[in-house]
Amino acid sequence: MEGFRVLEIKKSVFENNDREADKLREELKAEKTFLLNLMSSPGSGKTTTLMATIAALKDDLRIGVMEADIDSDVDAATIEKSGAKVIQLHTGGMCHLDAGMTKQGLEGLGTDNIDLAILENVGNLVCPAEFDTGAVKNAMILSVPEGHDKPLKYPLMFSICDVLLINKIDVMPYFDFDLDKCREYAKKLNPNIKIIPISAKHGDGIGEWTDWLRSQVAEWNK
Amino acid sequence: MEGFRVLEIKKSVFENNDREADKLREELKAEKTFLLNLMSSPGSGKTTTLMATIAALKDDLRIGVMEADIDSDVDAATIEKSGAKVIQLHTGGMCHLDAGMTKQGLEGLGTDNIDLAILENVGNLVCPAEFDTGAVKNAMILSVPEGHDKPLKYPLMFSICDVLLINKIDVMPYFDFDLDKCREYAKKLNPNIKIIPISAKHGDGIGEWTDWLRSQVAEWNK
Repeated sequence: MEGFRVLEIKKSVFENNDREADKLREELKAEKTFLLNLMSSPGSGKTTTLMATIAALKDDLRIGVMEADIDSDVDAATIEKSGAKVIQLHTGGMCHLDAGMTKQGLEGLGTDNIDLAILENVGNLVCPAEFDTGAVKNAMILSVPEGHDKPLKYPLMFSICDVLLINKIDVMPYFDFDLDKCREYAKKLNPNIKIIPISAKHGDGIGEWTDWLRSQVAEWNK
Repeated sequence: MEGFRVLEIKKSVFENNDREADKLREELKAEKTFLLNLMSSPGSGKTTTLMATIAALKDDLRIGVMEADIDSDVDAATIEKSGAKVIQLHTGGMCHLDAGMTKQGLEGLGTDNIDLAILENVGNLVCPAEFDTGAVKNAMILSVPEGHDKPLKYPLMFSICDVLLINKIDVMPYFDFDLDKCREYAKKLNPNIKIIPISAKHGDGIGEWTDWLRSQVAEWNK
């Protein structure tokens, strides 16, 4: 029997999402909880990346994860094994989370003893980019098999993210993925975006990524 | 200079999308045009699959393609080289197409001399599944790097498709992709779904896929 809770998320009642998001960030600041919003396409490796992230940070930070999966609980069941606190958010087929929905999730998770809360957003490069969740930082994963042209096709997502993790670099030899072009396209949209190539499966780049995340959490929670 | 047209798609004004979709199918039947709705995640190989499909069918069928790309025209420029008639639909960041939007696209493309019209839908496994476009058949692509658990996570998409193309089987050795499990999950949601493993890049399975599509078009347009 699994120990994590499943929370049915209701549609938000707030008209002004940006205001709600700002309010949520203020509350998180007061509670000394850092919220990371993690976005990507389906199958780019969000859950594997989270597992590697938790393994690297769990001795330093108290971590909670909100899994905004659409209809199953495979990810929550996986994350639970990492030892992090985890809650499954059932979004009833919704294609994104807004600040009101994220707040419901945080209340369900409980942030009293959480330094780092991570929202694993719905697998979708379109809709989640349009809604500020109230997160302190936005991160996205693009995996090598998806192709280096994705910044051209989903520009908003690349524009609003603080970090771009380029995952599955271990399979680079088998795909026509041009890392330099990908960097160039992403930086053109968002000159400040931090780009870290990783292999969540084999561990490459996870140190650089978790060092960055650790320092961001320390800065926010101090 | 590129020869294809770019059409700005407006939001639909129709309240009842299902009724509009049925009406559009009736019009397509009368015009002897078969409409295929092709859906997938970003980066699963929709455009490469289309190129292989057009190459296999262009001597038998007059083909038109609607590229519902979000913000760039990389796909339309690629497809244009295949010799098929192509139009780029700019959806202004919208995450799906409904029947009214598809109808605008078909009018822009012109279906008078088209036996097979293909809509390359927005790269998204969530929202496009919720809207009947008026297509005669729905096809989706799942690529091996995305993982075999995707039917569990995006069940609606797998439920509404007539065909599931499992693409990038050439890289199967480098990923933990269980083809039998993927079949089992998909068939449980949709016992009638036709599953064809392909490598759009190398041509495997393209014969089976295009034979199926050719027979569907012949049946509809007779």
